[in-house]
Amino acid sequence: MSNLITKTTELAMQITLFYVEQGDTVIDATCGTGHDTLALAEAVGDGGRVYAFDIQKEAISLTSELLKNNGCTNVELFNESFVYMGEHVPEGSASAAVFNLGYLPGGDHSITTEAGATIEGLRAALKAIRTGGIVTVVLYDGHEEGRREKERVLRWAEKLDTKTYHAVFANMLNQNNYPPEILWITKKR
Amino acid sequence: MSNLITKTTELAMQITLFYVEQGDTVIDATCGTGHDTLALAEAVGDGGRVYAFDIQKEAISLTSELLKNNGCTNVELFNESFVYMGEHVPEGSASAAVFNLGYLPGGDHSITTEAGATIEGLRAALKAIRTGGIVTVVLYDGHEEGRREKERVLRWAEKLDTKTYHAVFANMLNQNNYPPEILWITKKR
Repeated sequence: MSNLITKTTELAMQITLFYVEQGDTVIDATCGTGHDTLALAEAVGDGGRVYAFDIQKEAISLTSELLKNNGCTNVELFNESFVYMGEHVPEGSASAAVFNLGYLPGGDHSITTEAGATIEGLRAALKAIRTGGIVTVVLYDGHEEGRREKERVLRWAEKLDTKTYHAVFANMLNQNNYPPEILWITKKR
Repeated sequence: MSNLITKTTELAMQITLFYVEQGDTVIDATCGTGHDTLALAEAVGDGGRVYAFDIQKEAISLTSELLKNNGCTNVELFNESFVYMGEHVPEGSASAAVFNLGYLPGGDHSITTEAGATIEGLRAALKAIRTGGIVTVVLYDGHEEGRREKERVLRWAEKLDTKTYHAVFANMLNQNNYPPEILWITKKR
């Protein structure tokens, strides 16, 4: 009937999956609880591959467990920062890379992504995706580091080469309590 | 292979069509050259219905011709403002309504949509769509009336009831020459 999506993370995944097909290589830059990793693993299927990263051991455990429970065997998990994704993912190989910034839900709130590393990770992701691919970023500005991160990430995205990239920022107009927002970048050539 | 979309009007249609299925009733509030009307007519199929509006006779002629050439017989065309859509479309019947603001491409640039009427039309569209439906608006701020219209439309959308509507504004970060932007509103209940 209806495909109504109002949760920002789901909306970000909906946009991402438009660019993903069975058999594709994709990247989850921030496993977190593994929800996105699972969605990506199902979207690319047994013939595809997911490279998934998280600096927190707890996130890797949660994700690993979720994937096991759902019978997914097409994910490679790395307990590393997304900054190093280029060491594992071949350049120009992925159709999508997703970032869910901020802290691990239910985890240590002092461990959060930080603007400098995030931009480094986004640069790595733009290298890792192929022409026609997408990088999707869910941003949170409900905490101070999140606000700083968002401003810096958006300023960086504004300067991306127009001929190569198409950057779109979606903000929620009528929601309360700092709803997360979405930046997505597609690679045109 | 890739579903890469970088044209704002195509992106708006992509978002819209996620909420539309074969057999649905949908609304094109601004036929223009008929491009969106045709995409909607094809998306709902023979069992569906498109209500399409435009105040300019030229737009109705262009759209009518395009639909005829593509064998579409599921569209009702009205040479009327979208403000009056409620007189034709049953309340809560449509899964989507699309607005493409500004002036008719290649037409008289002095005839453009205007903020007051646009907001009236958007209110009518929110009445016409069902729960789970979407209203999509492509906005242009490359001309002065467009800038005024955009600001007023966004201020209006910010005040929409949070429990009933979810309003998202997507702006293009790294494009030149005032690329069009997208507002979309989904009806949650």
